[in-house]
Amino acid sequence: MTSNTEQSIPQTMLAMGFDQPGGPEVFRAETLPVPQPGAGEVLIKVAFAGVNRPDVIQRKGFYPAPAGASPIPGLEIAGEVVAAGSDVPADVVGTRVCALVTGGGYAEYCLAKHGHCLPVPWGMDLAQAAALPETLFTVWHNVFERGWASEGETLLVHGGTSGIGTMAIKLAKLFGLTVIVTCGSDGKCDAARTIGADHSINYKTNDFVEEVKKITGGKGVELVLDMVSGDYVARNLACLAEDGRHVTIAVLGGMQAEINMAQVMSRRLMLTGSTLRARPDAFKQAVAEEISDIAWPFVEDGSLRPEMDQTFALQDVALAHARMEAGDHIGKIVLKI
Amino acid sequence: MTSNTEQSIPQTMLAMGFDQPGGPEVFRAETLPVPQPGAGEVLIKVAFAGVNRPDVIQRKGFYPAPAGASPIPGLEIAGEVVAAGSDVPADVVGTRVCALVTGGGYAEYCLAKHGHCLPVPWGMDLAQAAALPETLFTVWHNVFERGWASEGETLLVHGGTSGIGTMAIKLAKLFGLTVIVTCGSDGKCDAARTIGADHSINYKTNDFVEEVKKITGGKGVELVLDMVSGDYVARNLACLAEDGRHVTIAVLGGMQAEINMAQVMSRRLMLTGSTLRARPDAFKQAVAEEISDIAWPFVEDGSLRPEMDQTFALQDVALAHARMEAGDHIGKIVLKI
Repeated sequence: MTSNTEQSIPQTMLAMGFDQPGGPEVFRAETLPVPQPGAGEVLIKVAFAGVNRPDVIQRKGFYPAPAGASPIPGLEIAGEVVAAGSDVPADVVGTRVCALVTGGGYAEYCLAKHGHCLPVPWGMDLAQAAALPETLFTVWHNVFERGWASEGETLLVHGGTSGIGTMAIKLAKLFGLTVIVTCGSDGKCDAARTIGADHSINYKTNDFVEEVKKITGGKGVELVLDMVSGDYVARNLACLAEDGRHVTIAVLGGMQAEINMAQVMSRRLMLTGSTLRARPDAFKQAVAEEISDIAWPFVEDGSLRPEMDQTFALQDVALAHARMEAGDHIGKIVLKI
Repeated sequence: MTSNTEQSIPQTMLAMGFDQPGGPEVFRAETLPVPQPGAGEVLIKVAFAGVNRPDVIQRKGFYPAPAGASPIPGLEIAGEVVAAGSDVPADVVGTRVCALVTGGGYAEYCLAKHGHCLPVPWGMDLAQAAALPETLFTVWHNVFERGWASEGETLLVHGGTSGIGTMAIKLAKLFGLTVIVTCGSDGKCDAARTIGADHSINYKTNDFVEEVKKITGGKGVELVLDMVSGDYVARNLACLAEDGRHVTIAVLGGMQAEINMAQVMSRRLMLTGSTLRARPDAFKQAVAEEISDIAWPFVEDGSLRPEMDQTFALQDVALAHARMEAGDHIGKIVLKI
């Protein structure tokens, strides 16, 4: 482990974890050893950590940390690299990065794979940087790599004001797609359009299948990014144009879906999906490299910024989770460490 | 229309069609005008026509001919080109070809797009040639183009002794895949292995999901080519390895399928499918060109031949359909014109 920064790294750190799954109140402060970076890893002094829906599911006990990952939640961080393991260039130490991590973000220090870090551009706020990796990697992989989104196509995303929804709007607009979102209130619909959505549908007052048909002149959308699943799947498929793709990234509305395979066949639909956290390091690094090449220039020139909801102190993580579960947030919730 | 052959083309021809959908007995001989080739088309004097499952479904009234197609069944033919329309090289006339057609194969003469014809190699039987296009185009597109099959992977195919099943076995083996098939009897299982399948499962006496797990050491197969659908879909997905693909080409067991989207997501499965007949000419020509480049050399050198079941006279098409529906055939049924 090498370090060329002047600051000393303490032996222990504050982290927010939980013993038993449950509501937001299960979080409690822990004092843990500061981890040591291994080969290919960096130690980041966390300035901000993003809060994501998988953290909430983990806290509820339904999404345990994968083998080898920290049991502390937190899948994305931004801060300063304070130490580097072997196989990492020494001049990385002292730089500001944001990183996708497999856990441990809700803490003062966190390990990241060097290949899963992206440099924070000069002048960019670390709170914003911490709010990028999880949604950027997820949307990038599922919409562009897995869902083959391309310029001129139309994307339907549910939860248009969620972290994923807002990132999907922004990224898809940067790459020339038309974006239709669904939201649960007229206020959120307005917010989604302000963020950049071309069309927003209040799913509580309208049938989104009918609205999508109207908006697309009966043709349907080329791509659905879905986190609802359950009975939404058949409705999503009804929204798809011929050769349309349906990518599942969460099953918040239930796992079982009944679908008409004759439609899949005759209209040449494609259904797939993925999760990010359990993927191998090499996969995440490949996504990071593609993002670095293609999407990060928009971060560097300021044209891609996450939609920010609220910042909470690390110790107030229970409030942050309660806010996410209440569903009133628009954009990303982050923790200030 | 140009012709450099000595034989004269009659004004009318025999064809086997039907007035009302129903059982095999609805077929009756018709005298129809010999069609005239338009731009990009050739007129083929049909020597043999392949019989396919879609013909049976069309005869039952559930798969009407697409707009512009002949109402006479028959999706593949082989014979001699006797006339060519504009935009077709004149020296095509007089050559022996097999062709994928949108209908009209059950007749003495049939039109085909020149771009949907493949040359019959010297010495190859026209009965065999007529038995190639429908299954070759279908398997090629769905297994290799749509399903991304590649060397070293394992393919599961149901109906291992059907026209599609036997072609899937042969083509997949030529391209280095391991092939597992299901069949409805031990005799068919033996036949499928003789044709080239690495493993065959009698689905009436064994649970194919368990058998596939045993055969693959728990890993599963990379690809399922499915024509059953219905409750097979969930079982097929259980046979898939991570990142596995499921391609639907028929729904003989029912259209509705209940699937677990959490499995699709967490194991990154892909479901898609297609039909061939209704696709645009340009698509079929592109498939024909890829087949011509990559698969046809195996036809030319004799290493790819269709598995032949029985040949019936055109007038006995009712018997041919009855044989297909009885399900005792192994390989392709063709009509001699």
